[in-house]
Amino acid sequence: MARVLTITLNPALDLSIGLGRLAPGEVNRASACRTTAAGKGNNVARVLAAHGHEVLVTGFLGAGNAAVFEAAFAEWGVTDRFVRVAGETRTNVKLAEADSRVTDINAPGATVDDADVSRLADELAAIASAPPDAVLMAGSWPPGLTAPMLERALAPLREAGIPLWLDASGAALETGLALAPVLIKPNEAELAACVGRSLGCDADLLAAGRELQGRGVAEVAISRGADGVLWLAGSAGLAARAPEVPVESTVCAGDTLVAGLMHGRLSGWTDARTLAFAVALSADAVTRIGVGRSDTPAFESLLRAVTVYPVAVEAAVE
Amino acid sequence: MARVLTITLNPALDLSIGLGRLAPGEVNRASACRTTAAGKGNNVARVLAAHGHEVLVTGFLGAGNAAVFEAAFAEWGVTDRFVRVAGETRTNVKLAEADSRVTDINAPGATVDDADVSRLADELAAIASAPPDAVLMAGSWPPGLTAPMLERALAPLREAGIPLWLDASGAALETGLALAPVLIKPNEAELAACVGRSLGCDADLLAAGRELQGRGVAEVAISRGADGVLWLAGSAGLAARAPEVPVESTVCAGDTLVAGLMHGRLSGWTDARTLAFAVALSADAVTRIGVGRSDTPAFESLLRAVTVYPVAVEAAVE
Repeated sequence: MARVLTITLNPALDLSIGLGRLAPGEVNRASACRTTAAGKGNNVARVLAAHGHEVLVTGFLGAGNAAVFEAAFAEWGVTDRFVRVAGETRTNVKLAEADSRVTDINAPGATVDDADVSRLADELAAIASAPPDAVLMAGSWPPGLTAPMLERALAPLREAGIPLWLDASGAALETGLALAPVLIKPNEAELAACVGRSLGCDADLLAAGRELQGRGVAEVAISRGADGVLWLAGSAGLAARAPEVPVESTVCAGDTLVAGLMHGRLSGWTDARTLAFAVALSADAVTRIGVGRSDTPAFESLLRAVTVYPVAVEAAVE
Repeated sequence: MARVLTITLNPALDLSIGLGRLAPGEVNRASACRTTAAGKGNNVARVLAAHGHEVLVTGFLGAGNAAVFEAAFAEWGVTDRFVRVAGETRTNVKLAEADSRVTDINAPGATVDDADVSRLADELAAIASAPPDAVLMAGSWPPGLTAPMLERALAPLREAGIPLWLDASGAALETGLALAPVLIKPNEAELAACVGRSLGCDADLLAAGRELQGRGVAEVAISRGADGVLWLAGSAGLAARAPEVPVESTVCAGDTLVAGLMHGRLSGWTDARTLAFAVALSADAVTRIGVGRSDTPAFESLLRAVTVYPVAVEAAVE
């Protein structure tokens, strides 16, 4: 099994609340609530650890409520290398009403400064001295972080030549492209925003993916929810159709997909096997609250229900 | 200084979120969020510990997120005697919009069963063997708890003759009256609900307080927000007018009032000094997010601004 580092710069506690009907301005009685230590990189770490990899997690954690993460990291069996910063890690609230309407309230996160980023750089330099086989950086940036600060912090990993996987959107994706990631995983909307045009059919998506390959990304996995995944690996293309599953929560589906792709690659599997596994794992995640699992009886049938087939890709747009 | 036990049967994490305007069904961006380990008894414990008392805290804590409370208890300097139960302690969300509209979302709390209550009874029996000078029980009940279960758990404290202070409403107050508390602290609405009629003037409130004294409560402190406090101690009555203060948050004002009254009583102060101190401390709590403090330069002027005067009370209604 491999040694993997995940970087979550702006993690979150996810607070899921069920209630009948949200009445703004009133005192509402919830029927249930549940808190989960989350953040995209942490979710990926959790899946990889469950699949036997040695996983280190880092990024910035607010000291005020770090205890919840510490307990989760211990439960998941990942090694905590997070830098503690002042304040508390944000809580993102998801209010699910009886009629299935969902209201999200996402907080900005704890602010970081130069000294915090220097401590992250020190942590990454220490980690790079016993280099992991792969690094995943995922999610948004905390307030206060700038591209030059981040590039400085990541320098030790780049110098060690460790492959960087990236799951981000917006400015974090734009900046990340300059780091020559081996793989990015935009969804359709994130990909469209990145190339600056709307995208329709498969050919549109593949052309946009090729365009990002032209900007230095080795592979582009385009996640399309229930429509599956398009995966550009070098000059080859693969598509996967996802099995139909009852939807419980799509919250961790994308993170589980990334983890599945990493697991396949780190296990030396073929691209086709890797993609089928990742799509099945992601489909499993949709059927439950939380990340996907492959250790259940249902997983084998999910895996058999995934269809993987090659797609023709044009030459990269230069 | 005294040794005090606070019992919080259904504690909560308070999550305060600031945002521009709440859009139900949408993804909302919050400007800030803050989590506080709370629950009425815990808030009182925090104030008493800050005033030099030896404070033990107990009740039920969900094991899933106990770490946040453990960190808070350590910071406050109180001794953690909480019984851990399955699940997680609820998070109560307070959404404050830019126009000052506040939406509360209160969760039910972790469910307790007979075995949990037996463990609380064991904990209370152990605590009663080195009896505290006073016990405060405050707040609502968790799902699963019934009056007979609670009475059984509290038996060791009753048998040790430890004075019980009670801050509760609804069924928790009704049941609590049977425990012959030395003091209860209803607000006007809670008092009205308890006596089963609407209450208007001071004389109404005092008569209702006397009625509860007739049901076995030694003292009744009626909190009236900005209008101050009416305090029935035995057959005497005192009233306090609160100083006018800029209102930041009234969330911990009532708990701070109870803590102030306990501090005065446990310090052997006169009733008048105790009430003035408690009302000033509660006014200080209103000016900040969190509990009141008496160690600030502003506190002395708050204390001077409190007016305490005797009020005539009728004989108790039998």
